[in-house]
Formats: sequence, C-alpha cells, structure tokens
Amino acid sequence: MAKPKRFTRIPKHIGVIPDGNRRWALSKGLNKEDGYGNGIDPGVELYKQCLELGVEEMSFYGFTMDNTKRPREQTKAFQKACVDAVTALTDLDASILVVGDCDSLLFPKELKDFIQRRSFGRGLMRVNFLINYGWQWDLRALMANRKEKVPGGKNIAEVLASSDVSRIDLVIRWGGRRRLSGFLPIQTVYADFYVVDEMWPDFKEGHVYEALSWYQAQDITLGG
Amino acid sequence: MAKPKRFTRIPKHIGVIPDGNRRWALSKGLNKEDGYGNGIDPGVELYKQCLELGVEEMSFYGFTMDNTKRPREQTKAFQKACVDAVTALTDLDASILVVGDCDSLLFPKELKDFIQRRSFGRGLMRVNFLINYGWQWDLRALMANRKEKVPGGKNIAEVLASSDVSRIDLVIRWGGRRRLSGFLPIQTVYADFYVVDEMWPDFKEGHVYEALSWYQAQDITLGG
Repeated sequence: MAKPKRFTRIPKHIGVIPDGNRRWALSKGLNKEDGYGNGIDPGVELYKQCLELGVEEMSFYGFTMDNTKRPREQTKAFQKACVDAVTALTDLDASILVVGDCDSLLFPKELKDFIQRRSFGRGLMRVNFLINYGWQWDLRALMANRKEKVPGGKNIAEVLASSDVSRIDLVIRWGGRRRLSGFLPIQTVYADFYVVDEMWPDFKEGHVYEALSWYQAQDITLGG
Repeated sequence: MAKPKRFTRIPKHIGVIPDGNRRWALSKGLNKEDGYGNGIDPGVELYKQCLELGVEEMSFYGFTMDNTKRPREQTKAFQKACVDAVTALTDLDASILVVGDCDSLLFPKELKDFIQRRSFGRGLMRVNFLINYGWQWDLRALMANRKEKVPGGKNIAEVLASSDVSRIDLVIRWGGRRRLSGFLPIQTVYADFYVVDEMWPDFKEGHVYEALSWYQAQDITLGG
C-alpha cells in the first residue's frame, strides 16, 4: 500500500523477524544459502523507513544458536549476512547493540565490538541485533546470577542477558509463519504480532504501512 | 467450517486465550461483567471437541493478576466463571491443574485444592487453568529458587512456577487480538498462533476445525 498521510500511533519499538530467505532462494532456483545476502538491502531500507516514521528502537532477529545446527554453508551465509547488515547500519546514525552468546565460536568475531551499545553518527535510533541468540541463554542469566542479590521488587527484564533491549510494541514477521520462534520471549509478552506473507528478500515499504495501519486499530492494555 | 474427514497432525497441547467476553456483553446491550458467565459452556464444548480429536493437553488463560485491577464487579464475575469452569470439568474425565498465585486473596479459595494436579474419572486429558497468573510471578521462581542447586543442564521450563505445564504447540485466541498478553511466555516460545475474530462467547466448533486446518500446513522446526 502507499504511504498514508499520517499515523496517530507509532510503535516505539518494533521487533523484526526477517524470515523466508531460504524459501525465497529456492523459488528463484538458487541454493538455500543464497537467500541471506538478499536480506541486507531490505534491512537497510526498513531501518531508514522506520527512522523517518519516528520509531525509537528496532530489534532484528539475526540468527539463533538453534539455527547454527543447519548445514555449514547456510550457517556461514547467515553469519556473513549479519556482519554485513550491522556494518551497513554503522553508516546510518544508529546506536547499535549486538545481543547473543559471544563466547561461542559461532559468534562472528567482527561483531565482538558491538556487545556494548555503540553510537554512530547522530545515534538517532537504538538498533539491536540478535546474533547467536537463544531464549534459554537469555533467561539463564536469571539463574546464573542467582548468587547475586536480586531485590524482590526488581523487574525480571532487568536481569536478562538482553536487559538493554526494551519492551517491544509490535513484532513484524516476514515469510508467513505465525509464531515467535524464541524471539525475546520477555520483551514480547504484550507485543502485537503482524505477519507479512511475502518472504523477507521481497520486502516492500508497503508492508510496513500495512502493519502500522493495522496497529492503529489495536488497543494497548499491557495485560490489564 | 464443517468437520474435515481427518487431520494428519493434531497438536498435542493447545493453549486457549478466551478473549472478548466484555466486548461480547456490550454488543448484546449487557454490562461488561455479564460476559464471563457466557464463556463456561464454550469451554466445556471446546474441551469435549479437543478430547474427541485426540488432543492430550490444554491450557486455558483464566485470569491474571493484571486483570484483577479492573472494577470489582468484573473481577468477581471472572473469578466466579473460572470456579464454575473448573468445577464443570471435574465431571468430564479431566486431569486438572490450577496454576497461579494462591497466596493472594484474589485467588478463589474454591480452587486451592487444584494447585496439585488432580485426576477425575478416567483422567483422559491434562487440563491446566491459569488463575491469578502472572508471567513475572511464573518466572520469578527462577530467581526465588536461586539458593537451590540448579544443575547447569537443567531446562528452564523445569524451574518455572508452571513447570507442570508442557510446551504448547498451538495457541488459539478468540476475540481478534493478535498477541499473547503474558500467556505462558516460556511454553509458547515455539507455538503457532491462530486468531479467531469472533468473541469467545460466540465459540463454534468450526473455529477449531479452521485452526487445525491451518495448522496442518505449518512446518514444525522448534527454532531449528
């Protein structure tokens, strides 16, 4: 759809599940691993679009520990795509954080500098990439830190490995699947969930306008 | 839709978010609190239908701690509806567990006997009711238990307050909202999510056949 004149409600934080790279590749007669490289430009376009719309934070589902059990050529391809995507954003006024298990060899060494948030240019938007992420790893910090004093009133979100990632208002998933697949289970407890049937490499700005048009009509109760 | 001849894949565990009771009441010219009582028969019908289909476990989102901040007449109405729903199931061969904070005065005292699973009749299906539940309460057990020895390899699901509730394959939400609203965030990490636009008191068996027909076409990857 074309860009509406204005939205009255813009989600502060959008979660992005860029799924369907392999199905897209197969549909083009390519090998599965050839899909990921076609997901970088869509990520840059989506970021620019959301920046213009006034979104304050985005979280991209890069790859998970589970994903790395796939064939080696696929793992190498999505590792490279994630490094390229983060690198591309460093030129575009983002404040970047990478969240994931960086002690593993499957974590791309080029991204180790990003496990503390780094601001580039004007640092206009917080952008989080989940890289070698796992929901059990994220939550295990609650148990691992159990020797420390956790005040009773402390919010669980504050003791997650992903504690610098805020609550998500809207999750948009490309590729037609209607599930979270382990994506930030705590930050998404109240998130509205919009599914785009097209595969991620077929991203169009219209998808976001559709998602936001739908989002306008949702109430926000935060469980109340 | 009518009942299909057969389903090749039946979810083992279905999560149920029976939303829309208040909107249904308003649409009938009733007070908001009058909707809940009309949600008990649908629950019984749904249970019988799922039992016949071969579903092994169901989890119903009764009410949450957040919900109890609503006006008192609403709180009283959904507390009563939950007691009535659990009571109705005791006649129908279910193995019933109530999960929620039973130390609070907002937890119906009639349900205290169900905080350990109890089997009725032939105990054919595990049925879990979330009553005065909260996702923070559920996960806080990970922190509360931090003095105990938690073996490194132990699954997080095993140390939840809701540890006797298994992984959910399919969540069906009535009432049109596309979000989990704090419903068992750990058990639903990989769940497929189906939304019925009709309000819960307007439940029809056809809704489940539609959900299952859709579910047939989903792959199961468990994050892989």
